Amino acid sequence: MRPGAAAGGRIGGRTWRRESYGPARGGVKPRPRRGDIIRAMRAAVLAVGSELLSTDRLDTNSLRLAALFEEHDAELIGKAVVGDDEAAIAAEIGRRLGRCDLLVVTGGLGPTADDVTREGCAAAVGRPLLDDPQVWAAIEQRFAAFGRRPSPNNRRQAQVIEGARVLPNERGSAPGLLLEAAGTTIFLFPGVPHELERMVERDLAPWLAGRSGGHGRERRTLRTAMRPESEVDQALAPAYLEFERRWITVLASPGEVRVRLTAAGPPAARGARLAAMVERVRQLLGETIYGEGEEGGLEQVVGDLLAARERTVATAESCTGGLLAERLTRVPGSSRYFPGAIVAYGNAEKVALLGVPAEMLERHGAVSEEVARAMAEGARRHFAVDYALAVTGIAGPEGGSAEKPVGTVHLALAAADETRHRAVRLIGDRERIRWQASQAALEMLRRRILAGDGNDAA
Amino acid sequence: MRPGAAAGGRIGGRTWRRESYGPARGGVKPRPRRGDIIRAMRAAVLAVGSELLSTDRLDTNSLRLAALFEEHDAELIGKAVVGDDEAAIAAEIGRRLGRCDLLVVTGGLGPTADDVTREGCAAAVGRPLLDDPQVWAAIEQRFAAFGRRPSPNNRRQAQVIEGARVLPNERGSAPGLLLEAAGTTIFLFPGVPHELERMVERDLAPWLAGRSGGHGRERRTLRTAMRPESEVDQALAPAYLEFERRWITVLASPGEVRVRLTAAGPPAARGARLAAMVERVRQLLGETIYGEGEEGGLEQVVGDLLAARERTVATAESCTGGLLAERLTRVPGSSRYFPGAIVAYGNAEKVALLGVPAEMLERHGAVSEEVARAMAEGARRHFAVDYALAVTGIAGPEGGSAEKPVGTVHLALAAADETRHRAVRLIGDRERIRWQASQAALEMLRRRILAGDGNDAA
Repeated sequence: MRPGAAAGGRIGGRTWRRESYGPARGGVKPRPRRGDIIRAMRAAVLAVGSELLSTDRLDTNSLRLAALFEEHDAELIGKAVVGDDEAAIAAEIGRRLGRCDLLVVTGGLGPTADDVTREGCAAAVGRPLLDDPQVWAAIEQRFAAFGRRPSPNNRRQAQVIEGARVLPNERGSAPGLLLEAAGTTIFLFPGVPHELERMVERDLAPWLAGRSGGHGRERRTLRTAMRPESEVDQALAPAYLEFERRWITVLASPGEVRVRLTAAGPPAARGARLAAMVERVRQLLGETIYGEGEEGGLEQVVGDLLAARERTVATAESCTGGLLAERLTRVPGSSRYFPGAIVAYGNAEKVALLGVPAEMLERHGAVSEEVARAMAEGARRHFAVDYALAVTGIAGPEGGSAEKPVGTVHLALAAADETRHRAVRLIGDRERIRWQASQAALEMLRRRILAGDGNDAA
Repeated sequence: MRPGAAAGGRIGGRTWRRESYGPARGGVKPRPRRGDIIRAMRAAVLAVGSELLSTDRLDTNSLRLAALFEEHDAELIGKAVVGDDEAAIAAEIGRRLGRCDLLVVTGGLGPTADDVTREGCAAAVGRPLLDDPQVWAAIEQRFAAFGRRPSPNNRRQAQVIEGARVLPNERGSAPGLLLEAAGTTIFLFPGVPHELERMVERDLAPWLAGRSGGHGRERRTLRTAMRPESEVDQALAPAYLEFERRWITVLASPGEVRVRLTAAGPPAARGARLAAMVERVRQLLGETIYGEGEEGGLEQVVGDLLAARERTVATAESCTGGLLAERLTRVPGSSRYFPGAIVAYGNAEKVALLGVPAEMLERHGAVSEEVARAMAEGARRHFAVDYALAVTGIAGPEGGSAEKPVGTVHLALAAADETRHRAVRLIGDRERIRWQASQAALEMLRRRILAGDGNDAA
C-alpha cells in the first residue's frame, strides 16, 4: 500500500478504491485522484494445455506476463496449469472470479476438438457462446490469403462468449477474447508465444497502463564478470542504505554476477530514482561492470571494444578446448577482429603448433604460468594479432593432484608490450570450470583493452 | 479406465474402487484383485514460493514429479504456484481435498517467517500444529554435527500437523510431512531440488508403487541426428500401425530428432512390449539411430567409438569457430583421441595454418567443397590423426549471396584412404546454423567409423 491515505472500500481486510482498477464504464476511465489509496492490482495466470503437464514442458508464457505485471505494478498472486479439460478449465477460472482484478488465460483457443478454453470460460461465467459472423469472415479471409479455405473445425474459433470483445490475432487463426465477470477482467490469449506476444503488447499492456494510474516499475541490470557474489554484495552496502535493500537484487551465475535495480512510482519519479541508483552502483562497482541489460555476454562487449579500437585477438586453448574461440565467434561480424585459434589439447601440439619449449612442459607441467605465457606468445606470433589469450588448466573430473587440483587454471594475455598472467582456482563440474575459465579470459582482455596499451598512443 | 470390469463405488461419474489407491490401513495395503476396475490415480502439484512468481524463475520440481507420476501411471491433473501467503496456500490445498488422490506440495518449509506451508496446510485440513520433540532433537543433532546450535526460528520446523507422519530430510533442516485428509494424501516436501529428490525417491516413489498395483509406464528414447523430422515420421509408419500412434512421440530439435517410446501395464508385459517397440524402431531407422536415452550428445557417442577403436580426430573450423572442438572436449577423457584443432576464421589463416592453396580460395571461395577438403587434409597432416573434420560455411546473418545463401555449409572428413565431402543447406539463426553444422560433422564421422576403414583391417 502506498502512503497518502484517504477513505476507500474495505474488501478482504485491505483498504482500496475499487474504481481505481475497475473496468472503464461508459468509456470513461476513473482516474485516481490525489489522496486516493491505491493498492496494487491483483493478477493471476492460467495456462491451458495437457502438454504443459507433461514431463518436459513448462509454461513459460507466464514469465512474459509476470514481467509485464511488474512493469505496471500489478501483483501476480498465483499461476496454474490445467489440461485440455473443459470442466477443469471452468473450475480454475471460476475460483478466480471476484478474487483478482485480472486473469490472463493462455492456450486452448485452437480449432481442434481438444481446444476447449472458450467453452470452459463460458461455463465459468455462465454465459452462452455465440457465432460471430465478423470473426468467421476474418478467419475465411486469413485462409484465403494463403489460398486455402478454413475447415469446419475453424468454425469453433468464430465462437464468442456473450458480451466479450474479440481481440484479433494478427499472427495466427485463433482470436483472443476480453471479458468482464464478477469484477474480474479476463483476457483469453492463444498459447503460441509468438502470437501471444503481439496481443500482450497491443491489448494487455495498454490496458494495464490505463488502470495503473501511471504507477509502475522499471528495472535496469548491471553485469559483472569473475567477481565473487559476496564481494559485490559488500561493495553495494552503501547503496543498500541509500536506496533500501529490497530494490537491489544480486543474482549470481557461474563467472557472473548481475545487479538488478528496480524503482517504482510514477514515470518521472521512478526514472530519476533509477538513474540515481545506476549512477551510485556504477561508482561502487567501477569498471568491474562490463555491461548493462539482461542480454548479451562478455564476448559481445569484448567484441565491440575490439572493433571500436581496431584491435585483433586470437586464442590458444587447452582445457577450454575451443570454447573461448567459439564464444568470440558467436558475435556476428567477429571476423573483423578474430582471425583464428589453436586448440592444443595435447602436449605435443603445444610444442609443434604454439612453440612451447618441450623442456618447459617437462619442468613445469602443461598447467603452469610458464606454459600459459608461452602459449599466448606463440599464438600472438602465429596470428599476428594485437592480443592473444591462452588458457591451460584442469577441467576434471580426472587429472587433478594435491598440488594442482581440478579447477586450477592458468591464463595469459600477450600484447605488444608485455604478457600478463593470472592463475585462478575454479569450482564446479567440468562444464562450469570451462565456462568460468573462458569468462576469466574474456574479462582479462576487457580490462586490458580498457586500460589501454602502447598501441593506443600510436 | 482399463478393461476387466467388476463392481465398484461411483464418485464423480467414474467407476473405481477407492481402496486401490487409498491409504494403507493398519499397515496392510489393499491389493487390487483380478477383475477390479482400476482408474489412474489423480495427482496434483502445488509449488509454494513468492520467487516462483517472479519474472525469471519457474517451478521445475513439477517436471521431476510429472516423470514419477508417469512412471506409476498416475495422471497429473493440474499444477499451481502460489506465493508465501498462508491464506493462499490454505485455499490452494483446500480446493484439492477430495478432488485428487495425491497432492504434492513443495517449498515453504524453511525456518524463516515467510515459510508458511505448514501453517497453510494445517488450516486447510483443520488440524492444529503441534511441537514434536523428536523432530526438534533431530534438528539440534543436525546443527551439532556442524558445531552449531539451531536458532529459535528453527523451532517452527519442529512443528507437525496433528496426525501427520514426519519425513526426515537427510539433506537439509526442513523435514517433510505426510498426511491424509478427505481422501487425499498430501506430501509436503522442501523446495530445494536436491533435498526434494532424495525424499521423492525414498518416500514418494514407493508410495506410488504400492498404490498403482504394479501398473506403470516405462519409456525409452532413441536419438537420430541430421535426419528431417518428416522423414523419421514417415519411416516410423509401420510402427505406428503396429503399436498405436499415441505410444510413439517424435520430438525435433535443431539437428536432432528423438523418438520416445512408452509402454504401460504391469512390469513384465510393459517391459516386453517396450523391447519389441525398440527393436522395431531400430529396424525401421537403422543406423541413423546414434544413441539411446535422454542424455548424452553425439560428441559422447563419437568419443566412445573413437576410444573403443583407438582412433584419433582433429578439426579444422571456419564458421563453427571452435564449436566442434569444444563439443568433442566436453567429454571427460577426450584427450585420448583428440589432440587439437585449428580455427581458421580468416582466409589468410586457412592458407598459413592449414595449407589451403591461395589460388583455390581465390577461385572457389572459402565456402566450397575444394576448400573444405583441403582444410580437412591440412588438419590431418598437422595433427597426424586418423580422421580430420573440416567445416566451412556461412553462419550469417551477413555474408550470404544468391549463389551461397546463409546456411550453406561444406563439410569434409579426411581419412587415410579418402576424403569425403558433404554440402548442406541449414536453416535458422547464426547459433542454430553453427550447431547443426557441428552436428552434421559429428554424424559424418560417426557413420564413417561405423562403416569401418582401411585401418580397421590392420
